Amino acid sequence: MDNFNFYNPVKILFGKGKITELSDNLPEGAKILFVYGGGSIKKNGIYNQVVDNLKGFEFYEYGGIKPNPSYESCLGALDIIKEKGINFLLAVGGGSVIDATKFIAAAALYEGNDPWDIVGKGAEVKDALPIGVVLTLPATGSEMNINSVMTKKETAEKLPFKSQKVYPRFSILDPEYSFSLPKRQIINGVIDAFIHVMEQYLTYPVDSPVQDRFAEGVLLTLIEEGRKAVANEKPDYNNRANIMWAATMALNGILAVGVKSCWATHAIGHELTALHGLDHAVSLTIVLPGLLDKKRNERKEKILQYGERVWNITEGTDDERIDKTIEKTESFFNELGVKTRLRDYNIGTDTVDFIVNRYKNRGLSAIGLQKDISLDDVKELLMARL
Amino acid sequence: MDNFNFYNPVKILFGKGKITELSDNLPEGAKILFVYGGGSIKKNGIYNQVVDNLKGFEFYEYGGIKPNPSYESCLGALDIIKEKGINFLLAVGGGSVIDATKFIAAAALYEGNDPWDIVGKGAEVKDALPIGVVLTLPATGSEMNINSVMTKKETAEKLPFKSQKVYPRFSILDPEYSFSLPKRQIINGVIDAFIHVMEQYLTYPVDSPVQDRFAEGVLLTLIEEGRKAVANEKPDYNNRANIMWAATMALNGILAVGVKSCWATHAIGHELTALHGLDHAVSLTIVLPGLLDKKRNERKEKILQYGERVWNITEGTDDERIDKTIEKTESFFNELGVKTRLRDYNIGTDTVDFIVNRYKNRGLSAIGLQKDISLDDVKELLMARL
Repeated sequence: MDNFNFYNPVKILFGKGKITELSDNLPEGAKILFVYGGGSIKKNGIYNQVVDNLKGFEFYEYGGIKPNPSYESCLGALDIIKEKGINFLLAVGGGSVIDATKFIAAAALYEGNDPWDIVGKGAEVKDALPIGVVLTLPATGSEMNINSVMTKKETAEKLPFKSQKVYPRFSILDPEYSFSLPKRQIINGVIDAFIHVMEQYLTYPVDSPVQDRFAEGVLLTLIEEGRKAVANEKPDYNNRANIMWAATMALNGILAVGVKSCWATHAIGHELTALHGLDHAVSLTIVLPGLLDKKRNERKEKILQYGERVWNITEGTDDERIDKTIEKTESFFNELGVKTRLRDYNIGTDTVDFIVNRYKNRGLSAIGLQKDISLDDVKELLMARL
Repeated sequence: MDNFNFYNPVKILFGKGKITELSDNLPEGAKILFVYGGGSIKKNGIYNQVVDNLKGFEFYEYGGIKPNPSYESCLGALDIIKEKGINFLLAVGGGSVIDATKFIAAAALYEGNDPWDIVGKGAEVKDALPIGVVLTLPATGSEMNINSVMTKKETAEKLPFKSQKVYPRFSILDPEYSFSLPKRQIINGVIDAFIHVMEQYLTYPVDSPVQDRFAEGVLLTLIEEGRKAVANEKPDYNNRANIMWAATMALNGILAVGVKSCWATHAIGHELTALHGLDHAVSLTIVLPGLLDKKRNERKEKILQYGERVWNITEGTDDERIDKTIEKTESFFNELGVKTRLRDYNIGTDTVDFIVNRYKNRGLSAIGLQKDISLDDVKELLMARL
């Protein structure tokens, strides 16, 4: 096992009705900016529940954050923060709203000229406004981590930043808040969480049985619960609760301790989303099977372990088992109703070339935290996904 | 899944050489009381490494904390704290040293007359001195939780207390620090962690697949790594690292979220230790098989799941599978060199009667967090373990 530091002070308030604990968890005298998305929370009643539980607090609203949240869409919040003296941000939504709120929190106290530098140039986040979260969509794990992914429309870039300063102080996770979501969004969340796990798990062995089994446990749960979510005619509380907790555990850092993470599937997927507007989860399902196939020799040991423990594949030669494992993974995504080929989205070789050239222009010769995915690998694995 | 709150802000610094990060994690101007045990850290070099990394800080020492730490042995620390103006406690040791340090931290700021009330009467811990930990013995999980178990010699009582105020600020977990331990202590740690998991897992199903699989993952790891620890002639880094991380994860709260914990095995085991000085782990191995057998009907579903997923027991009637599962569990403890019967320790019916009567005198009619272990159950399960 590799050396590591682990620190995650996010307080989780999990279960139905937990919104009633909101005000107890806000700092006294908080002046709050209530950040949300496209307005679905006004239709499903969550907006009213939040407002009811903000009684006694001064708060302002900033709605309209869209999926794949943009730098441009956050700038208005910075004006309100300055004008009203906001000292606490409350994100009510899914990963996009939370990620945007994290950026706003850091940008509000950023001392440089251009807050995009936090994302684009990795400028240090020295401080950030405190954040609370009310989660409405299980998927990204942003409610319990330091990560944010932001898009700059001007340049069609989608890039991550991370800072311990943007850890939420608390996150309210009420599975019932996911009941009014379209099934497609639940499925996307399951897939997103699934691939978060894979990025931390499916790399190189370091003799880490606890981490491996935790990862496999989350994967198995997402498979079972994802299938139930598809089959259920009406939302089921336990099903949604298990998906929500699995998605949070998938990316709160506990699976990544002491192991070799990758994140190349996300890096390439972000490019597809930035260029073609693909759903984040969809972009990942296209890339992952290609990446596993491309790295089948280098990552053989973990692919075989994953195949055996998650898909019960124990027979055949190593290559046959790897083939079956990749096939099972892709058909699981298909079973959830997602198409997993570039051609399904009218994306062709020109995009593949564009992505590889853009990496080159950024001075990269390989991607992934282990720097084991060369630009040739990127090209070949995407070509195999046409 | 039941509703829950989860909050664990302990910073973990894991791996060889992590002691060099000690001073960076101490508050500026800390006046430190360095608390330790019987002096083995002076022989194995850990003491010197700690002192080397306390350069620039004013610190005092308080050694001599013994296993099953006593209230009486902590009182001297309170005098030093007052006299020297100590504002930070550094626990260097295993669960006993950490638990004692937690009690000292709470007692130092306790406003009532008798700090034992924190344990004996559950008096509220309103504040506590901050604590840092250097772990030398993987077992109790105390390095990443709010729990402490203290013994009062005067009355031969061993009782727990818990408070978020005694969460360590950081814990340094260097697997090499366990290399000089006698094998028996490593084994005891494996067993202690194993039963910590069982107390949270082996009760009643609540549709919690993530928590269940995490629990099973820790159990499987402890079985594999426990066997390796017995077989290894010399300490192996990865083996010790995996035991250390498994023991921490076994009781940092993550396995307990939303499920129905029990802790009756510990409650009864504490009585055996308080009365007869049994090793904590040994006391648990005596009680657990009896408790599983006694609750075989009520807890059938989880026992069958545990038998199947951890011991691969899938054939026979339910009762046959339960028998095999309990047998496998007990023989694992035996395989690790632990005797699991009361008679092995010259304990007889008089002790059983004494324990049951003491529960009665404390006004209890049942024990365990689910209050499903009646005093008759306690009596019968212990009689079956003679």
